[in-house]
Amino acid sequence: MPRVIGYSLKKADGVQALKVAAITELADSPTAVARVAELVVLAVPPQPTLDLLALLANQPPSAAILSDVCSVKAPIVKQALASGVGDRFVGGHPLAGTHETGFAAARPDRFRGCVVYICETGSPGGHRAAAVVADFWENVLEAAPVRIEPEAHDRQLAWTSHLPQAIAYVLAKALSAQGLGGVSFGSGAKDTMRLAASSPDLWVDVFRQNATPLIGALERLGQEAAELRRLLSAGDAEGLRQYLEAARSFRQGIEL
Amino acid sequence: MPRVIGYSLKKADGVQALKVAAITELADSPTAVARVAELVVLAVPPQPTLDLLALLANQPPSAAILSDVCSVKAPIVKQALASGVGDRFVGGHPLAGTHETGFAAARPDRFRGCVVYICETGSPGGHRAAAVVADFWENVLEAAPVRIEPEAHDRQLAWTSHLPQAIAYVLAKALSAQGLGGVSFGSGAKDTMRLAASSPDLWVDVFRQNATPLIGALERLGQEAAELRRLLSAGDAEGLRQYLEAARSFRQGIEL
Repeated sequence: MPRVIGYSLKKADGVQALKVAAITELADSPTAVARVAELVVLAVPPQPTLDLLALLANQPPSAAILSDVCSVKAPIVKQALASGVGDRFVGGHPLAGTHETGFAAARPDRFRGCVVYICETGSPGGHRAAAVVADFWENVLEAAPVRIEPEAHDRQLAWTSHLPQAIAYVLAKALSAQGLGGVSFGSGAKDTMRLAASSPDLWVDVFRQNATPLIGALERLGQEAAELRRLLSAGDAEGLRQYLEAARSFRQGIEL
Repeated sequence: MPRVIGYSLKKADGVQALKVAAITELADSPTAVARVAELVVLAVPPQPTLDLLALLANQPPSAAILSDVCSVKAPIVKQALASGVGDRFVGGHPLAGTHETGFAAARPDRFRGCVVYICETGSPGGHRAAAVVADFWENVLEAAPVRIEPEAHDRQLAWTSHLPQAIAYVLAKALSAQGLGGVSFGSGAKDTMRLAASSPDLWVDVFRQNATPLIGALERLGQEAAELRRLLSAGDAEGLRQYLEAARSFRQGIEL
């Protein structure tokens, strides 16, 4: 890419990106980027993405294709349609997040090989925008674009991403209330709550924008936890073994 | 260590250990080891540890110091006392487990720098046994021995290890029931349920031997999960932010 224009609310991150040539120019505002760019990728949490979409939609005569990287898609696509940019917006969501944020956590190969969900708006021009953005992910960033409907994406991610994220927070919250500061944790326990180190700014937004499916998933998880407690109370060794085997079998079915 | 005698129910693991010189001899039975060893380390799940303690206690004239590596300590120490080996047993628990098992998962530096809990029996000779075993961990395996009472160990580990382990199983069990086979997971979600790939044989034992504190911890976790659901249902952005910040602050207080 001969020309990559960056903008960040955190000026230091933008300067750092420029210094290592991750971008070729640093802009003073999002609107300054949208005036000249062919493709604008909004890489911020859901609420700022919604705000930026509304802002950029009202900045003619930009014809830039717009996309995003949020972990929720239905509210973003709805906002794009409501803002009148349904013809030049397509939702994107790379499965490449970690608990880290900011330019310091960036890596040139961050997206290599990762699945990127692509959600069209359904507007007549949306299909062309999706083709451009899918091509960008596949051929520039070496990721694997996968088309999905926005609502199906959000229902699926409630389980596969937002629930694991929520349970890492719940676990760390429960431990924090136990006065366990200073005690030692094994690597497994650290893994299990690694996601609790993630940015609350980001995850308050995601959880709120996908609250209904996430509440359902948490309720289902609570039922599974209650079943484990029941097996423990009953001292049911065979029931426990079957429970753990079912869980292990699922976990082994996905890459470690 | 000039002489290291190994025994495993899995003969192939023993042969493999001998081939790479992790052990210098392969024995035909645990009793054959105990007849000649100065220090016997039982490295098996809780129930086989209890069984082996009873077996080896009845094999005079062994005077070998006995120890173990189980994630529960009170039942093991109790069994050592009941078996009449309180003077030559000390409980051990290195915080070095992963989701893997068997010799293929062994590493020469597995214990370097890790905390090892040391639990004395309280018998007159138990103190000397503890000194020998703590020295073994510190000077041979380069680990960091930490003395703790068996009951305090089990209460603490219910929170710091058994609860994270249980919740990884609960999460994988909930996802397995959702028909999500074949969908993609991000690295964070994989981390959160990595422990669900652990051996059910091991964890059925641990959970059963520490059931009461673990049930209490699971109940507390359920209350924290209910609070998160309440904040989500109420759309309480500020409450959510405080909840996630408390969790994040705890997680950041322990090494990543």
